[in-house]
Amino acid sequence: MEKLHIGHGTGGRLTSEIISEILRPFQKTSSSPYLEDCAIVDGNIAVTIDGYTVSPRTFPGGDIGKLAICGSVNDLAMRGAKPKFIAMGLIAEEGLDKNELLSYMESAANTCAELSIQLVTGDTKVLPKGQVDGLYITTCAIGTPPLDREPLGMVRLVPGDVLIVTTEIGQHEATIAAARYGLTVPSLKSDCAPLWPLVEQIIEMKGIKCMRDCTRGGLGTVLCEWAESTSLGIDIYEEKIPISSEVSSICDILGFDPLYLACEGCAVIAVAPEDAEKVLSKLKAHELGKKAQIIGQITEEHKGYVGMNTKAGGKRLVDMPVGEMLPRIC
Amino acid sequence: MEKLHIGHGTGGRLTSEIISEILRPFQKTSSSPYLEDCAIVDGNIAVTIDGYTVSPRTFPGGDIGKLAICGSVNDLAMRGAKPKFIAMGLIAEEGLDKNELLSYMESAANTCAELSIQLVTGDTKVLPKGQVDGLYITTCAIGTPPLDREPLGMVRLVPGDVLIVTTEIGQHEATIAAARYGLTVPSLKSDCAPLWPLVEQIIEMKGIKCMRDCTRGGLGTVLCEWAESTSLGIDIYEEKIPISSEVSSICDILGFDPLYLACEGCAVIAVAPEDAEKVLSKLKAHELGKKAQIIGQITEEHKGYVGMNTKAGGKRLVDMPVGEMLPRIC
Repeated sequence: MEKLHIGHGTGGRLTSEIISEILRPFQKTSSSPYLEDCAIVDGNIAVTIDGYTVSPRTFPGGDIGKLAICGSVNDLAMRGAKPKFIAMGLIAEEGLDKNELLSYMESAANTCAELSIQLVTGDTKVLPKGQVDGLYITTCAIGTPPLDREPLGMVRLVPGDVLIVTTEIGQHEATIAAARYGLTVPSLKSDCAPLWPLVEQIIEMKGIKCMRDCTRGGLGTVLCEWAESTSLGIDIYEEKIPISSEVSSICDILGFDPLYLACEGCAVIAVAPEDAEKVLSKLKAHELGKKAQIIGQITEEHKGYVGMNTKAGGKRLVDMPVGEMLPRIC
Repeated sequence: MEKLHIGHGTGGRLTSEIISEILRPFQKTSSSPYLEDCAIVDGNIAVTIDGYTVSPRTFPGGDIGKLAICGSVNDLAMRGAKPKFIAMGLIAEEGLDKNELLSYMESAANTCAELSIQLVTGDTKVLPKGQVDGLYITTCAIGTPPLDREPLGMVRLVPGDVLIVTTEIGQHEATIAAARYGLTVPSLKSDCAPLWPLVEQIIEMKGIKCMRDCTRGGLGTVLCEWAESTSLGIDIYEEKIPISSEVSSICDILGFDPLYLACEGCAVIAVAPEDAEKVLSKLKAHELGKKAQIIGQITEEHKGYVGMNTKAGGKRLVDMPVGEMLPRIC
């Protein structure tokens, strides 16, 4: 009798495995064989769903309310879709302070207001003490993908495409980890932010092939998925990857690899080489992208694998993490 | 410091109150002042979200997987919308038996298949032991409302409209309560079913004004909401309300009022008087509606209140329950 393991929820290899098992019964009868982070249905409706269980619920740079909007909106933005509507399901624990709950709703509402998103429907469940750790939020975001450009997706990746990371990686998970382990790093904060305002600056550029926000599993996991799914190789350069000194310190102390740390306001973007510099300069002109960097490219070498050229001058295989990451980071 | 109470999640008075507080920050900035069970956005997209935390997860007549599809699909059906897509977010407990999880996915997939609904996107979180009681599922259902008829809603209710209940009330909650209290009632089972196939039979009839499935809070709470929101009176007849002998027994033993017991495959429908008999006979011709009954009407008397003409010949005020109902029934 196989049991669920924390690793089934951390975004790496075990997550991929359990998701394909969950999907099997639906595939018998559905014409949609892939479970995407964000689906495009009926031609012009982008839809995504995500659960948020972050602990602690308030952290430097955000809280579970802001995160529950940003996370789902970012999944839409990665398909180039403008977010328009949010549906929100709350599962709360009896005894949760009502003002605390309302403060998360205030944060969520402020993020919606920034983006002119409407909350259109919701649900509230209250469970007996001990059956929820405070509050879990599930949001479904709905929006519209651009009609005047080829859809974004892995299917468009070809050797030579340039990979750009929009900001310093790992800020969110390092912040949560620091809070969880009682480490005080004054200037460390989550990158939690809605990416649509950044995506809006670049989405008309036809050279953009594929985008993904580096949430659970981090940049490393996204790149592994791209390489495995497309059977193309990916080459990245360690020295080019933007990492703050705060995140480096947390990684040194806790033994984390920053490549696998979750971000909540950082995307990796694949761009045709002729448009790469233009995209980079547009990103850098925006507050959310000013630390953007070209970090590597798609290659015909080592097909299906990600290789990282290390600062020390070697080359390291980047594999998908198997589990054992920090739970409840998002 | 006010704390969340189980009653905030039972669908009655406290739920209404907490929902209006949750909505307040969103109303400052959103043009959608109402949080509906099912919203119609962009003119032709029906969307709803609900969390499912039922305990036990498997019960006579269904399981959490089937319920998570039926519950959300029924919210769409009540607006007359044909369900097309499901987004599903899982929050699971470390140590949950994987085959058990997959059996719920099988149930959910079977219900989707019956209705030709596609699962289009999903999310899986696994939390440490003790932070989830097994499994919570949130589903968002998306569909299309009919374009060729006036939208359904409380706004269309007028005195004289006839109220029809589609099947025996209280079957779901009585089943869950029996399981929770260890009562064995062999022929008692949940009415958990997707209502779209029944709604499809009647939706073209222009006399249909408003529909609502009698979930948390039961038939009584739905009617109280209608009366309060419209400032119309509602008159019902106790002897007309379909109740199985099994549900009556459970109510006698546990001291429940069947009017407030949750259903998961039962709707109340308000119909213009000239169409009432036709709607009733169409309902009775379908498996899910063969026990349908006319139970009362909208009236100009006792505005804002629901009165029940009792079997004993008196008249009783039906008020919204304040709390203290059974948690985790759906």
